Amino acid sequence: MRELNQRAVLERLRRHGAATRPRLAADTGLSKPTVGQALLDLEQDGLVRTAGRTISGPGRSAVVYEVNPGAGHVLGVDIGRGLVRVAVADLSGTVVARVDERNRARSAGALMRSVRSSVEAAVTQAGLRLDDIVATVVGTPGVPDHRSATLRRAPNLPGWERKGLLNELSSVLGTELVVENDANLAAVGEHEAGAARGVDVFVCATVGTGIGMGIVVNGALFRGAHGAAGEVGYLPYGWPPPSQPPREGMLESAAGAHSVVEMAAARGLVVHTAKDVFRLARERDARAMSAVEEEATRLAFMVASVAAVIDPALVVLGGGIGKNTDLLSEPLTRALAHATPLRPKIVPGELGEDAALTGAIATALRTARDVVFTRRGGRVASQ
Amino acid sequence: MRELNQRAVLERLRRHGAATRPRLAADTGLSKPTVGQALLDLEQDGLVRTAGRTISGPGRSAVVYEVNPGAGHVLGVDIGRGLVRVAVADLSGTVVARVDERNRARSAGALMRSVRSSVEAAVTQAGLRLDDIVATVVGTPGVPDHRSATLRRAPNLPGWERKGLLNELSSVLGTELVVENDANLAAVGEHEAGAARGVDVFVCATVGTGIGMGIVVNGALFRGAHGAAGEVGYLPYGWPPPSQPPREGMLESAAGAHSVVEMAAARGLVVHTAKDVFRLARERDARAMSAVEEEATRLAFMVASVAAVIDPALVVLGGGIGKNTDLLSEPLTRALAHATPLRPKIVPGELGEDAALTGAIATALRTARDVVFTRRGGRVASQ
Repeated sequence: MRELNQRAVLERLRRHGAATRPRLAADTGLSKPTVGQALLDLEQDGLVRTAGRTISGPGRSAVVYEVNPGAGHVLGVDIGRGLVRVAVADLSGTVVARVDERNRARSAGALMRSVRSSVEAAVTQAGLRLDDIVATVVGTPGVPDHRSATLRRAPNLPGWERKGLLNELSSVLGTELVVENDANLAAVGEHEAGAARGVDVFVCATVGTGIGMGIVVNGALFRGAHGAAGEVGYLPYGWPPPSQPPREGMLESAAGAHSVVEMAAARGLVVHTAKDVFRLARERDARAMSAVEEEATRLAFMVASVAAVIDPALVVLGGGIGKNTDLLSEPLTRALAHATPLRPKIVPGELGEDAALTGAIATALRTARDVVFTRRGGRVASQ
Repeated sequence: MRELNQRAVLERLRRHGAATRPRLAADTGLSKPTVGQALLDLEQDGLVRTAGRTISGPGRSAVVYEVNPGAGHVLGVDIGRGLVRVAVADLSGTVVARVDERNRARSAGALMRSVRSSVEAAVTQAGLRLDDIVATVVGTPGVPDHRSATLRRAPNLPGWERKGLLNELSSVLGTELVVENDANLAAVGEHEAGAARGVDVFVCATVGTGIGMGIVVNGALFRGAHGAAGEVGYLPYGWPPPSQPPREGMLESAAGAHSVVEMAAARGLVVHTAKDVFRLARERDARAMSAVEEEATRLAFMVASVAAVIDPALVVLGGGIGKNTDLLSEPLTRALAHATPLRPKIVPGELGEDAALTGAIATALRTARDVVFTRRGGRVASQ
């Protein structure tokens, strides 16, 4: 009972911010003495702290309480083909340390070491030790297979599909961790703090080197029967299939970043990155604009497919390619109009390249808030 | 409390069949007098009846109780392009009357009258009146839009998209009813009593005149944001899209029944129905076999698309075309192997053309059992 009351008070403070004891009593429906006892317990355990006193209004001034964001910290890691991003956040979700490193690794071992050193740098920057981290969530391309502790379908990271990789990651980072598909985490990020706030059924497509998609159904991530839901890089673009299917999936091989460079090359434009193609298209280079238009129609294939299967309320577009909605939207929408009457609303992601990292932090926070609360369990019971 | 106990006893009898009072007490964890009181109440209200006495075993012979299947009846209707199917079932799910009529209607009004007369015939056959029906579920192609009481995306039934059609149906049938997409009901049917029993994440494709798909996620129908989830007839087969998209959807226009006839015609085989094509393929007519093979690769496109988005544990294939898995499976699986590493298990539906009707009955039963139990509420309370 006592713990239930504490939870109610803590949840109220977390959701609606600092408040006085009478305010908390009114909002939770608990009596003032009960709220007082809960605050006493929570303060003693370091989960709540005083934030000052009220200074105006009728009656005596009252103590204002707030959650103590420093009661625990979480770690979010986003392992991308181009960049490894690490953030440490406190329990309020505020990022207190951030490290981004170029991913130059050419083997799983090298990438592992690079992740480890980025994590150490971030934790040190936050003034913490790895032991202080309450929950860690790691995003990566591919489909985690927890039974074999292996990552599947991650062709863009060399060696990253090797057996037992998830255990390796866990031991290298020296902490319990959850590994989740990066496109899934991007969807969680956009749902929590971006373009899909409050939307119950949506997809978030991350189009860059690879193509992935996070699917949210009834407000929760939908992973499918084997964790491969949203692996839209495997959509059958370019039917009938070739005699040897491309390793990275038919749509991914036709619409990933490499393909944008190739489409530009086919139009006589020699550039090294998809980023250059979009830059030149913005400068109204006709060859770049044509390549971008072709890319948009290929992404329309993806949207049409997903609309026919999932019927999402919203398609959020992100990733290094997908974020260029200023150039992609118009030709994409036009191609879609020729293909299907099922045309979901398409919006750019609001979190940019930080979407997956934001989702990792949000996911870690859910665990951490619970862990921090319940690990005082023994103490509460013995009082 | 008393109602809760009655529910527990009734649920036990429903799930595991007839039983004695001691057996029910053991299974529900209730005391024997409590079970006795619940049985008395339920029997008095006509929900439970005695089924005889135990005749062997130690101790005295005991009364055996069972649910009274006649405590209520439900109506299931499946409105298809070719056939209107109607069934009346008792509360145990046993079909007590069944009427199938060819659908010769060329307008919504004519179809409405045909449905009405089939329903009347079935109810009469069951020795009931329409008033006796506790719950009705109607399956139809298309996407019910309950806000406007209109059916969308039902191009194969003439006039069936007209405004307020759902209200018309309700008033013509003279009863409260639920209208559900027929492919969705087929998925419910195969989940309840067919090929997908106990499977949590699967899809059930109905391929016939039209192409539809029911999607089950966490054991429940998934309808998407606007009820159009699984409208896979709109998958973008044959990319890039033509300047004018086909009314019935790109995949449906390429792989529906008409298209099978056309594929056969293109090979010099003049037949009138897809059924003939499959019959001739079974007789090893080379042109028919080639047309069936082409149809199978087009359906592989559908399976590859759904696998990349949903990652189902199982794909159930049904409908007039889809049921020919003996001919379709091998070329379908072969095409899939060229297209994607995501290859779900594909199985034929077990309910054949009755899948949607079975799903309609199953859905109606859920409502009816509850209605029959709670409408005695007043009586129970006043006792």
